[in-house]
Amino acid sequence: MAGRDTEIRKDTVTNRCVVFSPARARRPSDFKSKDSANPNHTQSECPFCIGHEHECAPEIFRFPPDSTVDWKIRVIQNLYPALSRDLQLNPSSDGMVLTGFGFHDVVIESPVHAVHLSDLSPSEVAEVLLAYKKRIHQLSFHQSVKYVQVFKNHGASAGASMSHSHSQIIALPIVPPTVSSRLDCMKGYFEQTGKCSVCEMPVKDLLIDESTHYISIIPFAAAFPFEIWIVPRDHSPHFHEIDSEKAVDLGGLLKLMLQKMSLQLNNPPFNFMIHTSPLQVTDSLLSYTHWFLQIVPQLTGIGGFELGTGCYINPVFPDDAAKVLREVNLP
Amino acid sequence: MAGRDTEIRKDTVTNRCVVFSPARARRPSDFKSKDSANPNHTQSECPFCIGHEHECAPEIFRFPPDSTVDWKIRVIQNLYPALSRDLQLNPSSDGMVLTGFGFHDVVIESPVHAVHLSDLSPSEVAEVLLAYKKRIHQLSFHQSVKYVQVFKNHGASAGASMSHSHSQIIALPIVPPTVSSRLDCMKGYFEQTGKCSVCEMPVKDLLIDESTHYISIIPFAAAFPFEIWIVPRDHSPHFHEIDSEKAVDLGGLLKLMLQKMSLQLNNPPFNFMIHTSPLQVTDSLLSYTHWFLQIVPQLTGIGGFELGTGCYINPVFPDDAAKVLREVNLP
Ligand SMILES: Nc1ncnc2c1ncn2[C@@H]1O[C@H](COP(=O)(O)OP(=O)(O)O[C@H]2O[C@H](CO)[C@@H](O)[C@H](O)[C@H]2O)[C@@H](O)[C@H]1O
Ligand SMILES: Nc1ncnc2c1ncn2[C@@H]1O[C@H](COP(=O)(O)OP(=O)(O)O[C@H]2O[C@H](CO)[C@@H](O)[C@H](O)[C@H]2O)[C@@H](O)[C@H]1O
Repeated sequence: MAGRDTEIRKDTVTNRCVVFSPARARRPSDFKSKDSANPNHTQSECPFCIGHEHECAPEIFRFPPDSTVDWKIRVIQNLYPALSRDLQLNPSSDGMVLTGFGFHDVVIESPVHAVHLSDLSPSEVAEVLLAYKKRIHQLSFHQSVKYVQVFKNHGASAGASMSHSHSQIIALPIVPPTVSSRLDCMKGYFEQTGKCSVCEMPVKDLLIDESTHYISIIPFAAAFPFEIWIVPRDHSPHFHEIDSEKAVDLGGLLKLMLQKMSLQLNNPPFNFMIHTSPLQVTDSLLSYTHWFLQIVPQLTGIGGFELGTGCYINPVFPDDAAKVLREVNLP
Repeated sequence: MAGRDTEIRKDTVTNRCVVFSPARARRPSDFKSKDSANPNHTQSECPFCIGHEHECAPEIFRFPPDSTVDWKIRVIQNLYPALSRDLQLNPSSDGMVLTGFGFHDVVIESPVHAVHLSDLSPSEVAEVLLAYKKRIHQLSFHQSVKYVQVFKNHGASAGASMSHSHSQIIALPIVPPTVSSRLDCMKGYFEQTGKCSVCEMPVKDLLIDESTHYISIIPFAAAFPFEIWIVPRDHSPHFHEIDSEKAVDLGGLLKLMLQKMSLQLNNPPFNFMIHTSPLQVTDSLLSYTHWFLQIVPQLTGIGGFELGTGCYINPVFPDDAAKVLREVNLP
């Protein structure tokens, strides 16, 4: 990679601004290296484990639906919710404060403490994805819910406070900033070209793997080293339109990406986020939005430059990262 | 704080969206606590130390200007620059790629390895601030430099790779996203009210301390617990308009905030960022932009929700945080 000049890139999807700077990879550090994802495996049981259901906030549903002690997935209320389902939505007169109405749920992905999402089979991962779908569908009946964010934190440096494999679903009474600016950006592209900018993403050197319905790539303006996107091949605005067959296909590709990332990058902490469209949409919006799943391994952390400017510095060019991940051979 | 309902706030300056959720403060964690700012004090000399100048990238200037071995501050080139002063600015045809032209400097704040910024006297902190001013002034003569970001990383979890006290200055060929959206937000406020939204910020319960020319507050929509802003009392678009007297006054207040934060929050890693205005500005822009310094202690980290939505979850209400910091008594 030596000798490649630094570049500032923007993409036509998220409108992020990223400085690609291979020289930065060679910085020395006099601090010790960061945590890996699993600092303490001493604990082996927690409230998310099978048999501890009474220590959790109320269940919303489980899978299989009629299971008793043999559940595989539970969707439960978050015991410390960021937003409250009991509040009335009530903006202040100046529009600067809104009561914190919303829903905040936890998806327990396995009954067993030490089993991670990537340990599940493709069809078991699909069951987790279909649990997201079912919950989003339920939430979509609330008029005040404008956007649903599905996300996963894995490992302490990725923000996780619980190590048992889980993800979270937050239903918001607003369309959040990242989503508005993504929609603005994609709208701009659509107005210029008549096309969806995700459908039109240049893929070539950025491709990692593909399945029947999805591709996995390093995005052109990846903000983080080895950031991965899994994107439906066909134009599709909402994640929760996924059907069972596609869920298994996506489950397989997601599992593969998590396995490759873990092997190549030494089991890093990571986040993934499903970027979908707002629940209430116009027909024109449907023609230019396209959901995707973003995986961000936490390798470098950010500093004052990123906090101050909203630009990112990425030492690894996307085509180099894609080549590395394309060539990972799983045992 | 118990019993206070969650709220979603936006401010009229940065347009950030923050969920205030006191219940979140009570989450348990099965991960060990995060790093403090000084994990390893074994090392006592580094390239930034006095006597090691030859291990550094070239010097730009030092303070006092005519000092030899007895320098107090050095402004040097970054040995691993994110942007390169040697590149020609050259946007690609589709406007999505720009060559990485720019400047990336390091400000060594003390010749001594173990001395931190908050250990300096107010007039010594002022010398650091005046070094920023001088360097921004120099950079402002480059037509292609559109914005200068001054920032500091302190502690590994705040991104620092070097523990010797320092800050950084990056000169960009673009106005970065955070700045554009701050300017848009302040412009909107100005068009509605004819006033600068920073001058008009409601302060009351949010005040921490004040000096002759500055106030320190917790912002109304603080994205991070105990985030602090130091704001000039008088309308002032550019940080680099600061004079020596104001620099000493600011130096004192900055030192006080760092000391209070360190004492109250157990020496946390932190970042600070100077939010100023673009270098090339119109008269109308000058009437609604107002620089400020933002300090962010790294207490909680972020997770997939923040990465996905751009909204933040803050468990500490600003008035509560301000009260705590107001009442810290320094020894
Ligand atoms: N017995 C129980 N029953 C039900 N729910 C329980 C429970 N015990 C704990 N929980 C909930 O389980 C969730 C576990 O979530 P994670 O470990 O993914 O991260 P957390 O939400 O704590 O914070 C991370 O993610 C958020 C959102 O991105 C960031 O704001 C934050 O800084 C970062 O640390 C917590 O939200 C917690 O409230
Ligand atoms: N001998 C020498 N001479 C001159 N310069 C030298 C040098 N040795 C090291 N340097 C430079 O000194 C700087 C020290 O900076 P910091 O410790 O504040 O964080 P760093 O920039 O490494 O990264 C943090 O801040 C950036 C920007 O916010 C984030 O992108 C990143 O993830 C985060 O870790 C580095 O930029 C390094 O290149």
